[in-house]
Amino acid sequence: MNHLLTLAELSVDDVLAILHEAERFANGETWKVNKQTFVANLFFEPSTRTRCSFEMAERKLGLEVIPFDADMSSVQKGETLYDTIRTLQAIGVEAVVIRHPSDHYFEPLRHAIDIPIINAGDGCGHHPTQSLLDLMTIRQQFGTFIGLDVAIVGDIRHSRVARSNAEILTRLGANVLFCSPPEWQDTENRYGTYVDLDTAVKEADVVMLLRIQHERHDEKMGWTKEQYHEQYGLTIEREKQMKKTSIILHPAPVNRDVEIASELVECERSRIFKQMENGVYVRMAVLKRALQKGGTQNGYHIQTCALA
Amino acid sequence: MNHLLTLAELSVDDVLAILHEAERFANGETWKVNKQTFVANLFFEPSTRTRCSFEMAERKLGLEVIPFDADMSSVQKGETLYDTIRTLQAIGVEAVVIRHPSDHYFEPLRHAIDIPIINAGDGCGHHPTQSLLDLMTIRQQFGTFIGLDVAIVGDIRHSRVARSNAEILTRLGANVLFCSPPEWQDTENRYGTYVDLDTAVKEADVVMLLRIQHERHDEKMGWTKEQYHEQYGLTIEREKQMKKTSIILHPAPVNRDVEIASELVECERSRIFKQMENGVYVRMAVLKRALQKGGTQNGYHIQTCALA
Amino acid sequence: MNHLLTLAELSVDDVLAILHEAERFANGETWKVNKQTFVANLFFEPSTRTRCSFEMAERKLGLEVIPFDADMSSVQKGETLYDTIRTLQAIGVEAVVIRHPSDHYFEPLRHAIDIPIINAGDGCGHHPTQSLLDLMTIRQQFGTFIGLDVAIVGDIRHSRVARSNAEILTRLGANVLFCSPPEWQDTENRYGTYVDLDTAVKEADVVMLLRIQHERHDEKMGWTKEQYHEQYGLTIEREKQMKKTSIILHPAPVNRDVEIASELVECERSRIFKQMENGVYVRMAVLKRALQKGGTQNGYHIQTCALA
Repeated sequence: MNHLLTLAELSVDDVLAILHEAERFANGETWKVNKQTFVANLFFEPSTRTRCSFEMAERKLGLEVIPFDADMSSVQKGETLYDTIRTLQAIGVEAVVIRHPSDHYFEPLRHAIDIPIINAGDGCGHHPTQSLLDLMTIRQQFGTFIGLDVAIVGDIRHSRVARSNAEILTRLGANVLFCSPPEWQDTENRYGTYVDLDTAVKEADVVMLLRIQHERHDEKMGWTKEQYHEQYGLTIEREKQMKKTSIILHPAPVNRDVEIASELVECERSRIFKQMENGVYVRMAVLKRALQKGGTQNGYHIQTCALA
Repeated sequence: MNHLLTLAELSVDDVLAILHEAERFANGETWKVNKQTFVANLFFEPSTRTRCSFEMAERKLGLEVIPFDADMSSVQKGETLYDTIRTLQAIGVEAVVIRHPSDHYFEPLRHAIDIPIINAGDGCGHHPTQSLLDLMTIRQQFGTFIGLDVAIVGDIRHSRVARSNAEILTRLGANVLFCSPPEWQDTENRYGTYVDLDTAVKEADVVMLLRIQHERHDEKMGWTKEQYHEQYGLTIEREKQMKKTSIILHPAPVNRDVEIASELVECERSRIFKQMENGVYVRMAVLKRALQKGGTQNGYHIQTCALA
Repeated sequence: MNHLLTLAELSVDDVLAILHEAERFANGETWKVNKQTFVANLFFEPSTRTRCSFEMAERKLGLEVIPFDADMSSVQKGETLYDTIRTLQAIGVEAVVIRHPSDHYFEPLRHAIDIPIINAGDGCGHHPTQSLLDLMTIRQQFGTFIGLDVAIVGDIRHSRVARSNAEILTRLGANVLFCSPPEWQDTENRYGTYVDLDTAVKEADVVMLLRIQHERHDEKMGWTKEQYHEQYGLTIEREKQMKKTSIILHPAPVNRDVEIASELVECERSRIFKQMENGVYVRMAVLKRALQKGGTQNGYHIQTCALA
């Protein structure tokens, strides 16, 4: 089954193949399913970016999206996730995209469900399409991952982005640096080296800021927003220390003037909105991969001129 | 007006015609509206199955579905259901599917609204498309209804499924048995005979389990889940007493290990997910019937090969 | 940028051009975008009419609507409206329709966002497409605005309809009368003359009733519904005093037997449901205008026979 649950399950070749396909979509190539094909997006947590991005990717592939509203679903009557997905499958849905607050919600589903599941985020676990769009954005800039220094800054411990990215970047040949308040360091994540922020900013080719996820913290954090910005945020002063060719990433939504100075969100080296654009292409590639079973081409390509 | 409000209003011939049409859809036949046609699904209660099933049926017929979110609608500002539907009609909607918590919500609408209304469930009243999909599933197994013993087990009194099914099954020539805790017997429903569960399980061709609808009970029920399962549930032991050719139905969502042992949900004689699949075909047939006014064919057939 | 934020920003010629285009759509003309084009509707307040009407208009133009659920969006995580719209733009959305509870929410966006924004209502501010559909309905009846007496009755102070309509009607040559409880008069709106209700009803060509917006009042109003109806409502007796050719408008949802006697909602001179029908045509015209940049025709016309 062509699930996409975590990047750790993919070989480097698989990852590069997805990035290659995404780049083709970015260059204007089109692929459409050749029969009416239904998918559903099951989002059990708030999301604008990821949800709209999947929807856009699906529509661009000619897929029909069956609306699913978690608040109005039978999950409210105690139905299990397995039964919900089996129901959608019985009705005719051919792939599901799921975001869920529980880490590894997909483990009981992995071998039990025989339509593709695409993980759009599991609790503090993984977020593979976010990682893929980060990788695509980095590769567009540098052409390679080998030897790049990538600094991941912020709440390393609770971030699915940090977890997914550090592992795959390391496998792709990049060198990962972590910067984090001591409370948010993640001793179980062995794919990065902790350094202080000013070192990281000066040395990194990519400064990847993590969002403070107020909604995932039971305890209050010990700083004001201003203090966090001063100590762990990308201030206007710090940005000036970055190397000429270095770029800024952030998974968004941005807490302006906390993780990053508001003026920098759309500065020349920021790729924050570029990441969102790339997200659509990456998700098109992932969906195409999921729907192509056993090598049969379940759609058709249209070669179009590049989009500028 | 081609409303579908209760099955009691349909003749046996009408019911059989819908089932026949549904079977054609199940065999791969297609019918598409031949102009842009808009419908809306007004769900004032949570639902996955019925809502997604209607949406799927609509899309398969080429209909465009105008999203309607009860929580974000003017019903929140006190608008009547009549005014809401008239509004949708003024805007260009040509049929509405409605689920509503009030029994017989449709009575003030029946003669006042001149676009078809399809009842997707009214309180403890009726749920005609659920009955139709049950009938379709039974007929696929036995080829007929005449002389079949159908046991309906559970909360007979609060169940719109029990109400709709007992009446139409009796008219179609089946023999209906009811099994229910004394508190949930329905003395007004004269279309079945109360028997004890073990008798029913042994004799019935169809064992139709009803969901415990916690959300419709003001009072607490007097049993634990384990006690209910032991006394009124289809346990693994009881399933072994069923006749070789008998089948199990459940309208879902299933409370696993309450109405039915979890291991039995997908057992060989279970038709629970088959019911959901049939639901799409039944709703396609009902929508087609609703949109064909005065004998004019408002669409076109495509004869395709059977879908296996 | 072809935003539509307030009617006050449009010339009389612009307004008449939109009305002319809407009338062509009402007469059965079709215009479709000639490539896959995405829009999003951002509704931060409940709405049936406006939301479904925009959705219908969009679908009729062949646009694809990316679902956006304010309750499940990152706005819940504190994202600014600017960042949300920029995100949608990055993802590929080419126009946004916004309803928001804050007056003038669009001011920080006006020069910062370079896809068209269509205002579907801002707090107690403006509601330009509602005004346009009122104008279209009036012009269908009288062929002109010059010299017409238009009475606007109700909560003048909190009504975005009153604000938008009084200004544009005056510019178009009509004479605006206001009727309002003293507490709800609006001394800053200089485009109308306060008269008593019975005078207005007798003299006006158009009696435009405003909805009592319970949801916008912090304080309780000093009357019962019956008292309001008696003093400021269109009772059955008052309707008899209207001129033969005069018409009744109401933006809906109607509070029946408060602003207007329930029996009058669909009386011969009521245009309340006609307004809703016209709303779709007006929104098609507005969306077409927004998507046609720099004179390039981003779609194609189909001349069809008139409907009706």
